[in-house]
Amino acid sequence: MVDGRWISWVALLMAPALASPAAPSRAPLADSERVQQHLAELTHFGAEPEGGVSRVAFSDADVAGRAYVRRLMEAAGLEVRVDAAGNLIGRREGTDRKLPAIVVGSHTDSVPHGGNYDGDVGVMGGIEVAQQLGNRHIRLRHTLEVVDFTDEEGGLVGSRAMAGELHDATLDLVNASGRSVRDGIRALGGDPDAISHARRSRGEIAAYLELHIEQGGTLERTRTDIGVVEGIVGIHWWEATITGVANHAGTTPMDQRHDALLAASDLVLAVNAAATELPGRQVATVGRIRAEPGAPNVIPGRVVLSVEVRDLDAARIEAVFERIRTRAAAIAQARGTSIEFRDLEATAVPALTDPRIQRIIDGAAHALALTTMAMPSGAGHDAQDVAHIAPIGMIFVPSVGGISHSPREYTAPNDIAHGVNVLMRAVLAIDAGELDR
Amino acid sequence: MVDGRWISWVALLMAPALASPAAPSRAPLADSERVQQHLAELTHFGAEPEGGVSRVAFSDADVAGRAYVRRLMEAAGLEVRVDAAGNLIGRREGTDRKLPAIVVGSHTDSVPHGGNYDGDVGVMGGIEVAQQLGNRHIRLRHTLEVVDFTDEEGGLVGSRAMAGELHDATLDLVNASGRSVRDGIRALGGDPDAISHARRSRGEIAAYLELHIEQGGTLERTRTDIGVVEGIVGIHWWEATITGVANHAGTTPMDQRHDALLAASDLVLAVNAAATELPGRQVATVGRIRAEPGAPNVIPGRVVLSVEVRDLDAARIEAVFERIRTRAAAIAQARGTSIEFRDLEATAVPALTDPRIQRIIDGAAHALALTTMAMPSGAGHDAQDVAHIAPIGMIFVPSVGGISHSPREYTAPNDIAHGVNVLMRAVLAIDAGELDR
Repeated sequence: MVDGRWISWVALLMAPALASPAAPSRAPLADSERVQQHLAELTHFGAEPEGGVSRVAFSDADVAGRAYVRRLMEAAGLEVRVDAAGNLIGRREGTDRKLPAIVVGSHTDSVPHGGNYDGDVGVMGGIEVAQQLGNRHIRLRHTLEVVDFTDEEGGLVGSRAMAGELHDATLDLVNASGRSVRDGIRALGGDPDAISHARRSRGEIAAYLELHIEQGGTLERTRTDIGVVEGIVGIHWWEATITGVANHAGTTPMDQRHDALLAASDLVLAVNAAATELPGRQVATVGRIRAEPGAPNVIPGRVVLSVEVRDLDAARIEAVFERIRTRAAAIAQARGTSIEFRDLEATAVPALTDPRIQRIIDGAAHALALTTMAMPSGAGHDAQDVAHIAPIGMIFVPSVGGISHSPREYTAPNDIAHGVNVLMRAVLAIDAGELDR
Repeated sequence: MVDGRWISWVALLMAPALASPAAPSRAPLADSERVQQHLAELTHFGAEPEGGVSRVAFSDADVAGRAYVRRLMEAAGLEVRVDAAGNLIGRREGTDRKLPAIVVGSHTDSVPHGGNYDGDVGVMGGIEVAQQLGNRHIRLRHTLEVVDFTDEEGGLVGSRAMAGELHDATLDLVNASGRSVRDGIRALGGDPDAISHARRSRGEIAAYLELHIEQGGTLERTRTDIGVVEGIVGIHWWEATITGVANHAGTTPMDQRHDALLAASDLVLAVNAAATELPGRQVATVGRIRAEPGAPNVIPGRVVLSVEVRDLDAARIEAVFERIRTRAAAIAQARGTSIEFRDLEATAVPALTDPRIQRIIDGAAHALALTTMAMPSGAGHDAQDVAHIAPIGMIFVPSVGGISHSPREYTAPNDIAHGVNVLMRAVLAIDAGELDR
């Protein structure tokens, strides 16, 4: 879709007083070897014998890793600061100071025993974009910021702070590093007592772009180079409690039982059916189940299980849950049990990406002869918080086997280079005014 | 079925040199108030504030409770000894020393937070039979023994020793009392180093009769006075392991999952169907289930669950399991998982009661105008071990609500009296030679 010459011409017409923006057609290509070297060097911080990393936010490995990222940013010509939330921000001044910034980024913290790509690819990709612009002396009209967000895995701490959504209670949580979020932010050079200073206002950011591994297997399975993310799904959690009658498994005839686990099994299948029978890409999962008293010779009297539903559309999440609830009532009746649902607070609303940015990403990919697919992000990302204050876009690259949060997480160097090239062209297209087309 | 006059006459013909046995038609009736008083006094040993008892075998409460039982036996005119396994045995000499003993009994140990009837009713019923015979100066041809078995709830310790089936490894187990079986037997006055002395040979016991509460709700529901037990079911345990692929519940589309919990839910339903679709009274239960990793946002990659099947017929247990295994193979295929079964050792073979004793119990009940029902015992009992060396019979009385192993366990005084009266008549019928009819 993107025709570089035409964009340059439009941009010139639209902003005749400005220096000519760099047209995507002149976009430099990523130095794949350098990106791979940076990714490999980053793995030294928190490296695990089995191959992945444990670079949990606020751990010594995280602190050291971010010092390394800071050096890369500086080497790429960025002016680096740490905001109050500990976010590491590298800045490349634009030619027009009145224009809002284009922000690219992701995170470099990991889950315990995580992989070497989740988050890292987006940060290293952003730094490579800045490096290429510097090397080629390409000036953008917009200021470019590359952000390594604080504690993504522990609850999107840095991006929530940037969106003004980080609350005091979160600061007191202690994560797997053994540090509280408050102390951890301090260790990263932030100022948890002035957390509101990290907040960015609507209008300050022209667009936020995040390059990330898919963490699912759809791109690989369909042999697609680039996923154009339509949005980050909303997540709703419920806890279901099935109550029957615990009884002796030897003396209670089959027709006299009120077996909570039989009803729970029906419910697990109903949760699956509720998601699969509707058209669409919603997902529903029972990941946790507990039967009480839990002895082989006692009929379970109580089962507690989790129900999770995700979709880009909050109304569809509710529709799936309504189907589950309706079936649960029938199951409870048939099995002589009760089934109650409790709404859990750990939910996220869907965050849609900007359709204009989707088009820009799609066009950038096609200009590079890459195949694309529109898809939801089933996992959460910093972009979902930034969405509260700015238009967002996300670029996915294939995860081999769909494996993530594991040392076996892998994305091929060529696929990462594709992603960085698309990111580069998207930045240039937005800088050229493509958002206002 | 039992005609007292005819039995007396037959017995006289069969054993002309013996004193005339007491005919069941002259059987004394239980003193229900005394039985209730004894049961109530027994509850003082290990009484719990919520109403039941914790009289775990080998605990101080068990030791004190058995001392009380011993006093009751002595008051009933029995000669009391403790065998090497700690079994408390009250003996009333018969007129014909060449005849094997008729043994009645049960146990007075309880599960933690158990009820006041499980086991106790059989021991107190046996003592009441001896007391009545003593009061009425009724001499039996056979020696009568009343046994309070050691540690029934912890694994049928006393009755296994009597059958020669108690192995050394069991002596080292420590139960909820904090004592090992070895030390516990010693505390009861037994001699664990000479455990084989507790063994009784085939031919030493003419018949073993056990009066017990049903522990299920069938007698109460069908308003039947007496359960004529056909046998104690065999129990077979398996552990099933379902292996799928753990994956991100957000990024893995529904059609790309290998959800171990979905397959496990199918399997739970298949276990239930395998038992209910065949005619018969077999039962099959999944009482324990564990899903891994067990987080609401991760598709379970592995589920481990227990499968228990019980029936009077070992071949039927196998048939039920074969149905389960066949279905499991289809489930594994359909869900893209594997399902493996591991045979657990904690199994018991079925122990059938003697059909002649069943007829004697049934006849005794009808002579008392009580209604009867033939039924399996779904729970284990000391009788199942004694079955290895002697013909056995069991008399069940109704459990209100089918509740057992709970302070809410209850059997009405009148039902207990019915059970003792049937036990009395059965003892007299066997003594009169009814087994040889």
